[in-house]
Amino acid sequence: MGKYRVLIDANDEKGLVHKVSTLFYNNDLNIISNSEFVDKENNKFFMRSVVDGDIEYSRLQELLTEVLPTSANIEVIRPQKKNIIIMVTKEMHALGDILIRHEAGELEANILCVISNYNDLESLVSKFNIAFVTISHIDLDRAEHENKILECLAQYKDIDYIVLAKYMRILTPRFVEQYEDKIINIHHSFLPAFIGANPYKQAYDRGVKIIGATSHFVNNNLDEGPIIAQEVIHVDHAYGWRDMQRSGRDVEKIVLSRALKLALEDRIFVYANKTVIF
Amino acid sequence: MGKYRVLIDANDEKGLVHKVSTLFYNNDLNIISNSEFVDKENNKFFMRSVVDGDIEYSRLQELLTEVLPTSANIEVIRPQKKNIIIMVTKEMHALGDILIRHEAGELEANILCVISNYNDLESLVSKFNIAFVTISHIDLDRAEHENKILECLAQYKDIDYIVLAKYMRILTPRFVEQYEDKIINIHHSFLPAFIGANPYKQAYDRGVKIIGATSHFVNNNLDEGPIIAQEVIHVDHAYGWRDMQRSGRDVEKIVLSRALKLALEDRIFVYANKTVIF
Amino acid sequence: MGKYRVLIDANDEKGLVHKVSTLFYNNDLNIISNSEFVDKENNKFFMRSVVDGDIEYSRLQELLTEVLPTSANIEVIRPQKKNIIIMVTKEMHALGDILIRHEAGELEANILCVISNYNDLESLVSKFNIAFVTISHIDLDRAEHENKILECLAQYKDIDYIVLAKYMRILTPRFVEQYEDKIINIHHSFLPAFIGANPYKQAYDRGVKIIGATSHFVNNNLDEGPIIAQEVIHVDHAYGWRDMQRSGRDVEKIVLSRALKLALEDRIFVYANKTVIF
Amino acid sequence: MGKYRVLIDANDEKGLVHKVSTLFYNNDLNIISNSEFVDKENNKFFMRSVVDGDIEYSRLQELLTEVLPTSANIEVIRPQKKNIIIMVTKEMHALGDILIRHEAGELEANILCVISNYNDLESLVSKFNIAFVTISHIDLDRAEHENKILECLAQYKDIDYIVLAKYMRILTPRFVEQYEDKIINIHHSFLPAFIGANPYKQAYDRGVKIIGATSHFVNNNLDEGPIIAQEVIHVDHAYGWRDMQRSGRDVEKIVLSRALKLALEDRIFVYANKTVIF
Repeated sequence: MGKYRVLIDANDEKGLVHKVSTLFYNNDLNIISNSEFVDKENNKFFMRSVVDGDIEYSRLQELLTEVLPTSANIEVIRPQKKNIIIMVTKEMHALGDILIRHEAGELEANILCVISNYNDLESLVSKFNIAFVTISHIDLDRAEHENKILECLAQYKDIDYIVLAKYMRILTPRFVEQYEDKIINIHHSFLPAFIGANPYKQAYDRGVKIIGATSHFVNNNLDEGPIIAQEVIHVDHAYGWRDMQRSGRDVEKIVLSRALKLALEDRIFVYANKTVIF
Repeated sequence: MGKYRVLIDANDEKGLVHKVSTLFYNNDLNIISNSEFVDKENNKFFMRSVVDGDIEYSRLQELLTEVLPTSANIEVIRPQKKNIIIMVTKEMHALGDILIRHEAGELEANILCVISNYNDLESLVSKFNIAFVTISHIDLDRAEHENKILECLAQYKDIDYIVLAKYMRILTPRFVEQYEDKIINIHHSFLPAFIGANPYKQAYDRGVKIIGATSHFVNNNLDEGPIIAQEVIHVDHAYGWRDMQRSGRDVEKIVLSRALKLALEDRIFVYANKTVIF
Repeated sequence: MGKYRVLIDANDEKGLVHKVSTLFYNNDLNIISNSEFVDKENNKFFMRSVVDGDIEYSRLQELLTEVLPTSANIEVIRPQKKNIIIMVTKEMHALGDILIRHEAGELEANILCVISNYNDLESLVSKFNIAFVTISHIDLDRAEHENKILECLAQYKDIDYIVLAKYMRILTPRFVEQYEDKIINIHHSFLPAFIGANPYKQAYDRGVKIIGATSHFVNNNLDEGPIIAQEVIHVDHAYGWRDMQRSGRDVEKIVLSRALKLALEDRIFVYANKTVIF
Repeated sequence: MGKYRVLIDANDEKGLVHKVSTLFYNNDLNIISNSEFVDKENNKFFMRSVVDGDIEYSRLQELLTEVLPTSANIEVIRPQKKNIIIMVTKEMHALGDILIRHEAGELEANILCVISNYNDLESLVSKFNIAFVTISHIDLDRAEHENKILECLAQYKDIDYIVLAKYMRILTPRFVEQYEDKIINIHHSFLPAFIGANPYKQAYDRGVKIIGATSHFVNNNLDEGPIIAQEVIHVDHAYGWRDMQRSGRDVEKIVLSRALKLALEDRIFVYANKTVIF
């Protein structure tokens, strides 16, 4: 009974669209939108449909499982606000952009809490009546620090996404594996250029004429996870690296918010360390 | 027997994707790519599929006609080089870009001839062994001049597209109606800004910080036909209007060539004075 | 004693750079940055220098007046926070972006107050301990409503800029003349396309492939004041006008904040209904 | 007697603008345009002026040498067509773009000849009555092959720039040193991402959402010379690497032509493996 997002990926074979669209038709489901893509190199089929109609969630899932090959991953999603955690360090722009969108009601998300290793941003977050948790890393080794964060996260049972809105510490494999394809990062360079620390300084030193930002899912290779969105701006010789940093902030926040929106609307498939985005 | 592009537009109703994909499936056609769009405001359905398989062209057309509602426009196209006429005045850049692409073999088109009201570009076109016809407008009224052009065009029976690569004269309704949705123009502004003569001068006078170019199908309202592609570049106070013109040329040629490519690949639907592009 | 921004515009004549740079040199002023532009069409010279050194503000002004022709406009500015008023209606994004930048300390401005004809945004503004004044237009004619706003503004003696962050009412000539070249507006289209109401609807109806936003000083011709900054994003047939509106918000807020930053840094000359920006 | 471009770089010190502008003034030279930049990190001053007036070329050079510190590099250039050599392999687009610009008379250059290791592009170049020299690398080691190219180049005494318009072989240090800051390359990626072979394949494998092209001077570190110009385009999951390659061609040719234009207009300073561009 309602509106569903149906996400399917499967090994490609003849008849997949036919099978799914026939199922929708026979169950009197109205297709609101429909996107398909076949990755020929990997012989992989992707489909995202939004349908409307008079069918139980579990019944739709069941029917799709019946008609599709066993290789298929099938997700039927009832559109609703997702639960997100935001992690930050000290910079305000990316967090601020998300908070304003949230306040404006344009973000399909509940912000469960904001976690930081510093308390600089507590004052901002508190204005919006959102929980802010400072978990300092001082005097802790990486594992101890992460344990504290994981404990904090454990309080929340349904975390859909963890958004690293300029969280400037590297997460360990243990952490990352626990939230596979659920951690969205913003890296302040046009990846794969300038992996690692202070990419604006690197960009300045290299004398590039364009800088950028990249939002990606985090995996266990630094700055090498599946890319969701990228954007760039032009710079010139008059930009010192701090000017690049300042100008780059606008790109960073827009790209992160765009990636988050795609995730919240269930528009992203992750496959072969890349994304298919409908 | 072969590969077909199938273009369908119809009043939207439940089951269209189902009907078409079932038809493809039952006839053992492999879907290479598939795009759909529903214009909800106008309740209009658009679909473009590329399929491969063992079916006669006419049989596929017939079967589609059987399953689809009578409102549907159905085009089955066998991919092959299309026949184009290029019309120019004196500027070389847009024509030159098309000629080089043609020479490089990346344009799915036969250039039947280049028509101009001046002979300035004859020398360039002749290098490429392409017919160049000068039809001067001097001492002719608009109708007489166009009659001569129409006579020239009448020699060629299958003209798929007429490309106005900076043809600086306005075509009359009589001409335009004869080649409806077949005349592709490049206008040297970001339409609908700066309709009409010397848009760069207009842009300069207005003090804009961005200029652009627009490729569109020609209809009988000047610069108001369905837009196919647009692109822009940043300018600043240091640009005189001739600088804008110079910089604008790169945008013009790229946008026109991009629009032409979309047309040659049968990716454009024209509807309600707009385009749907897959 | 200190750092000054020197802005000069004058009728162009030989020796202006020589005169100014010699003055700087003789007074032992260090040039931090220097930009010049000559508008040849209007025979107009523009120069912006940032200098550092041991000279009184009034002395520098005096010396410049001595060496420069009487046609010259000379401004010596001591960099400091400017006083701004923000006017809004109901939309949060442009205001929110400015508030976050202000909170982050990256805006060289004191926000004196936010004025709106509705109280929707009061809750947001109050979080930041900034005065919010609701001046409803209900049951008032335009003059009465503006009188109330002008009364409110009259409380503040040094208003450097009034920022219309999606203030959706037209200001009268009386208002505009009082704050000439001090009112910065964001228009939600790529001007001069789609002047007036609901530009996204206009853009949708026209079927454009790019939409944009324009920040400009307000004069008495609707949406025709001197343009400060413009930016665009690509859209396609799948965008309804509300999608354009949603996507356009990111462009609007970035462009307005960019224009405001240029104004706060005294980088803008207004001349002949255009801007020269250094 | 005439119009000169004056390029100066020097260790920064107080009074440089004063000295140069006073010299111009005292010699009754009219400043057409003037740009300055100080690289504070390296304490380096850059200035490019275009002046018009009644002074001998050598006299202007002499006077500038007198007033400027000994650290200064001074170039006085009489604007005229520069001599260029183009080197290519098999791809037509970048070469074709330059040839069309040359034919249109918009390139301030004489094309002395086009050199290739294949003869695929001879037919195109011959149309324009430009010398084409095939120097095959087959059965030659790198040194032998380059010797032949150097011999060919030795015929021309004044080569201002060598343009690598998709020349797909690496030049040796011996070659590069002989033409320091004179070899302009186009690399088909957004450097420093995807250095080396087949960057489009690398970009595809990485799953980037933006691809680009970079024009740079060649030095002896592969793809690490000073960057002149960069541009990008958006791609998505539907782009195979050959699609990226196809779309990338438009960016490559535009960026290379833009860089070449900057060089021909003497707008580029090379310093610290970067460029300052006026």
